[in-house]
Amino acid sequence: MPDIDPWGDVEIGNYKDKMENFGISPISEVEDRMPDNLLIRRGIIFGHRGMKEFTDAREDSEDVAMMTGIMPSGVFHFGHKSVVDQILMYQEMGADITVAAADIEAYNTRDIGFEKSRELVLEEYLKNYVALGLDLDKTDFYFQSEGGNKYHTRSKQFAKHLTQNEVESTYGSAAPGKITSALTQYADILRPQFPERGGPKQTVVPVGVDQDPHIRLTREVARKFRDLEFKKPASTYNKFMRGLQGGKMSSSDPKSYIALTDDVEDAKKKIDQAKTGGQDSLEEHREKGADVSEDMVFELLAFHLIEDDQELERIRQEYSSGEMLSGELKQIAKEKLEEFLLEHQEEREEAEAEIQQFLDENDQRI
Amino acid sequence: MPDIDPWGDVEIGNYKDKMENFGISPISEVEDRMPDNLLIRRGIIFGHRGMKEFTDAREDSEDVAMMTGIMPSGVFHFGHKSVVDQILMYQEMGADITVAAADIEAYNTRDIGFEKSRELVLEEYLKNYVALGLDLDKTDFYFQSEGGNKYHTRSKQFAKHLTQNEVESTYGSAAPGKITSALTQYADILRPQFPERGGPKQTVVPVGVDQDPHIRLTREVARKFRDLEFKKPASTYNKFMRGLQGGKMSSSDPKSYIALTDDVEDAKKKIDQAKTGGQDSLEEHREKGADVSEDMVFELLAFHLIEDDQELERIRQEYSSGEMLSGELKQIAKEKLEEFLLEHQEEREEAEAEIQQFLDENDQRI
Repeated sequence: MPDIDPWGDVEIGNYKDKMENFGISPISEVEDRMPDNLLIRRGIIFGHRGMKEFTDAREDSEDVAMMTGIMPSGVFHFGHKSVVDQILMYQEMGADITVAAADIEAYNTRDIGFEKSRELVLEEYLKNYVALGLDLDKTDFYFQSEGGNKYHTRSKQFAKHLTQNEVESTYGSAAPGKITSALTQYADILRPQFPERGGPKQTVVPVGVDQDPHIRLTREVARKFRDLEFKKPASTYNKFMRGLQGGKMSSSDPKSYIALTDDVEDAKKKIDQAKTGGQDSLEEHREKGADVSEDMVFELLAFHLIEDDQELERIRQEYSSGEMLSGELKQIAKEKLEEFLLEHQEEREEAEAEIQQFLDENDQRI
Repeated sequence: MPDIDPWGDVEIGNYKDKMENFGISPISEVEDRMPDNLLIRRGIIFGHRGMKEFTDAREDSEDVAMMTGIMPSGVFHFGHKSVVDQILMYQEMGADITVAAADIEAYNTRDIGFEKSRELVLEEYLKNYVALGLDLDKTDFYFQSEGGNKYHTRSKQFAKHLTQNEVESTYGSAAPGKITSALTQYADILRPQFPERGGPKQTVVPVGVDQDPHIRLTREVARKFRDLEFKKPASTYNKFMRGLQGGKMSSSDPKSYIALTDDVEDAKKKIDQAKTGGQDSLEEHREKGADVSEDMVFELLAFHLIEDDQELERIRQEYSSGEMLSGELKQIAKEKLEEFLLEHQEEREEAEAEIQQFLDENDQRI
């Protein structure tokens, strides 16, 4: 078995080990050349491969691109929101944005049919992406099943440049369903560089470490392919927010996450029930303070609800010193969350019309 | 290694053994329900799988289809002509004809680029097909690289229904290039049954025994696939004409074949140099007669140049009795060949305009 299975359900615990094993460099190497964004300031994006070349190109005013995929695996929750935050960061940097709805991969690796994929992608994912700020007019959004002849054909041509050994040592098997899904993903990642989309350019793919095998083999294919020129894609690696009860956030366990479409009162209840780093008794808490690193409510604030570093730092100090109680922290989180959700749910309504218009106008292309 | 490698270059010697091993039935089972065609009368088509169901459907006036592929591997010679003769037989039977130009397979398994494929397919293959009688207006002709979103997507979905073990035991490896080529071929074979082409129908694929692995796995995929209904494709198996010098007819050895575009005088010279079943001396020949089964000129007459069974039988008797000499047989063959080639080369000129018109009209679809 490979160290990392991109189709598995494995929690990636020790980021540092993985970084060393796979030649991922710390994001600090390029931090001062990236936008001032909480994702980077707070170490949510912690590693990269190839971002020096990406930032060089951007500073030389070359076209750059960012690519990400949507795997339609349930409701859209705060764990997914970090992906969109990253899209928005690159959108602001002026990168071409490509968003692939991975319906072929969902079919082959998760037994999700195309209709179900389409419904989930549009209703749960794309609507939230647009509500959060994705500019569809400047985005190449498509379903893999509708990617076009050149896209599909190239994904098949890439097969020629991979051996069975490479596939097996990377993915643990050469099952046809896995190979096909992987090849389709390579075409997604290289699509911003297709001649029809302006040709070779530095492209970044933000991923979790579990998706790194795809990045490595795409870089290999980009290097070997002779029919078109491709620059090797860059990647960044982000931490995953933990579930509200600690442990993994999982789409199959609604108590582990807050969906962006959750009813506000339900969402607040989930905050009330979340695992905190507070001590068992008031006395002990006042004395020892909270263990912020084990507090899921603080994690939610840090990942999503508090943009201002000073404000977050003040809370961290008060909470870890014992001055602030878990109940008080939860109260802050519930207020921030309510504000966020109410505004987001309004934005979702506006997003709906925008998406419909986009789909109507792009009907020919698809 | 598997018994049969569809991408290999193996001469299939013992048809009977292969038939038994792979559950191929003798064509005699359905001979009286097939057209009166020399391909069947002379045992060129010798086996089948699933043709009872195909002929049942045809007799019940259901839609039936015939699918074949073009692998662009050099000039079009008499060895290839049997494929076209089979297309024409099914065209006369009223079957829908599908012809896939296998440019993705040529790229992945033979290192032939798309441009070269296109040039060979149109100039060497399709022009000869049309000159021989293929009716393009009633044919679904396409390049794999231009097969469309649904075609490519379905080829990828088929991957889900195959295990690595099945692929390895059938093809000897699970190399990504082979898997991708095979899946694309399954989509070619099932394409006549796509909803866009009228839905499920009995479909026959005439092949050489070397291509049987694709047929077996396509039948398996057709059985397992749930998103669309497919009838399991039928197949027929044809002998390959031997090379003019005996042994395998090979595109890489121009002395082994006569191309349909050969200059008439060059072609006649190849007949002069062909291996015959005649005896070494005139005396011996008059006494023992020719060994017709080892005569490549007689094989050419039987496969392609003499339609009339009585005429062929008369020649066979005279030649095997020693009454007719090899030189006399060659003279007959040269006259028939000259007549055929001159007429064919005229037909080719007319075919050119027809193909151009077809490509222009189908530009939107492709």
